[in-house]
Amino acid sequence: MAKTPSSGLYVIKIGGQVIDDPAACETFLHDFAALPGLKILVHGGGKLATRIGERLGIASKYVQGRRITDDAALELVTMVYGGLINKQLVARLQALGCPAIGLTGADMNAMRAVKRPVKELDYGWVGDLSAEGIRVEAFETLLESGQVPVLAPLTHDGQGHLLNTNADTIASSVAVALAAHYEVQLVFCFDQKGVLRDPHDPDSVIPRIRPDDVQHLLQEGALRDGILPKLENAFAACRAGVKQVIIGHARALSALAEQALPAPSAVGTIICL
Amino acid sequence: MAKTPSSGLYVIKIGGQVIDDPAACETFLHDFAALPGLKILVHGGGKLATRIGERLGIASKYVQGRRITDDAALELVTMVYGGLINKQLVARLQALGCPAIGLTGADMNAMRAVKRPVKELDYGWVGDLSAEGIRVEAFETLLESGQVPVLAPLTHDGQGHLLNTNADTIASSVAVALAAHYEVQLVFCFDQKGVLRDPHDPDSVIPRIRPDDVQHLLQEGALRDGILPKLENAFAACRAGVKQVIIGHARALSALAEQALPAPSAVGTIICL
Repeated sequence: MAKTPSSGLYVIKIGGQVIDDPAACETFLHDFAALPGLKILVHGGGKLATRIGERLGIASKYVQGRRITDDAALELVTMVYGGLINKQLVARLQALGCPAIGLTGADMNAMRAVKRPVKELDYGWVGDLSAEGIRVEAFETLLESGQVPVLAPLTHDGQGHLLNTNADTIASSVAVALAAHYEVQLVFCFDQKGVLRDPHDPDSVIPRIRPDDVQHLLQEGALRDGILPKLENAFAACRAGVKQVIIGHARALSALAEQALPAPSAVGTIICL
Repeated sequence: MAKTPSSGLYVIKIGGQVIDDPAACETFLHDFAALPGLKILVHGGGKLATRIGERLGIASKYVQGRRITDDAALELVTMVYGGLINKQLVARLQALGCPAIGLTGADMNAMRAVKRPVKELDYGWVGDLSAEGIRVEAFETLLESGQVPVLAPLTHDGQGHLLNTNADTIASSVAVALAAHYEVQLVFCFDQKGVLRDPHDPDSVIPRIRPDDVQHLLQEGALRDGILPKLENAFAACRAGVKQVIIGHARALSALAEQALPAPSAVGTIICL
């Protein structure tokens, strides 16, 4: 089953803002379906869970600004992330000729996490995932039979409980775990064209960032709050074997299909070592 | 990938009354996990969808006594059947050492149905499935990599829509489609010990029914209303290659594990040609 690491694999994460916008989602799914080669889609949750939770009388609980996943919230995200969103994405992808299969971490024991330990705060049914929790054989079996895994942001603990897990973490963990077997490009699609030099200019995409660039960009004031942890996670993924990380707009995905190594800025910001 | 038809395969269907009873469900899952060899679980929906629908303000719609699946009802069953029930069963089975993978018909294009044509009645998003709609390769890939498919009562139309589909029909269609590749036993678990000779005596299980027995049983008054169509479906499955159909209680599943050909009445009523 082992592949030469030269087989390319895209791990592509879309966030809630794509899920929440039917037109943007449809465009994205067309581009994703058209992307050649091996690929995995990881989706976030979006606002749907909050909206359906409100109708069910399940309020989103926050303590010290952190979202808490109690029993009711876990049932809600299991329904919405694992059922509604995941299965609708899979059905749409099938219609576009993309042989998708939707998974949570419990399916095939693909992603096993650890329930976040209770310290100052009890986050409830939240799972902390790392690359060690990814069962590589499950992904190999599916990828090599031509399937395209579509991952909901849910893991399990192996004790019978599902766990709410950050979709960015799932994407990174899967990318790192599969990097020994495939040449992995990890793509985060969000609502900007990439990492911006000037936050007020949506076209000021920084085409490429290497570790040595960070100090200079910080001095320039180019890196907004919040982007530095993302960069550090991206460098960590690259140090763990991921070929490169791309942060870009969902609409730019089609540029990826056009060439093996896309031109910087056409797809967003490329982060590599 | 083709197997000699001598590889045994159980296709086991559990209905809502098992899903709705946590203790019965847990016992069933233990017995199912312990069953050796290749196996597929098909689950119904139970009352959970109705209860959650009520909380969401989605009333179950009936026209002429038939349930209608409108847009809101389809979202509801996608959440509850495809998400909540399916993923909780999978997580529990994983904890019991059973390598489960949850699927709707959209996943791997495993089960493609036809939206029920509008005649006197528009049933909405309901899918009619037959053995031709089962993609055998998808099941072979999973079974031969050691996985245990867990099927939600949802199919898709290949055009991007999920479809609400009767779990008994899914179980029969999968059993028939796989009968050319495996020696299939189709097991319907419900809330009685089998087909009863006397509906007032829960222990009066008819151990075995063959087509020739039906006339006699009808004359005896042993077959209640509603059981005849089930028998006819069972004989049809056997004529299409299924080795035998068992109608029995969820609690009797453990008897199946004890011997390759279980003693009649220990597991329920055995229906064969």
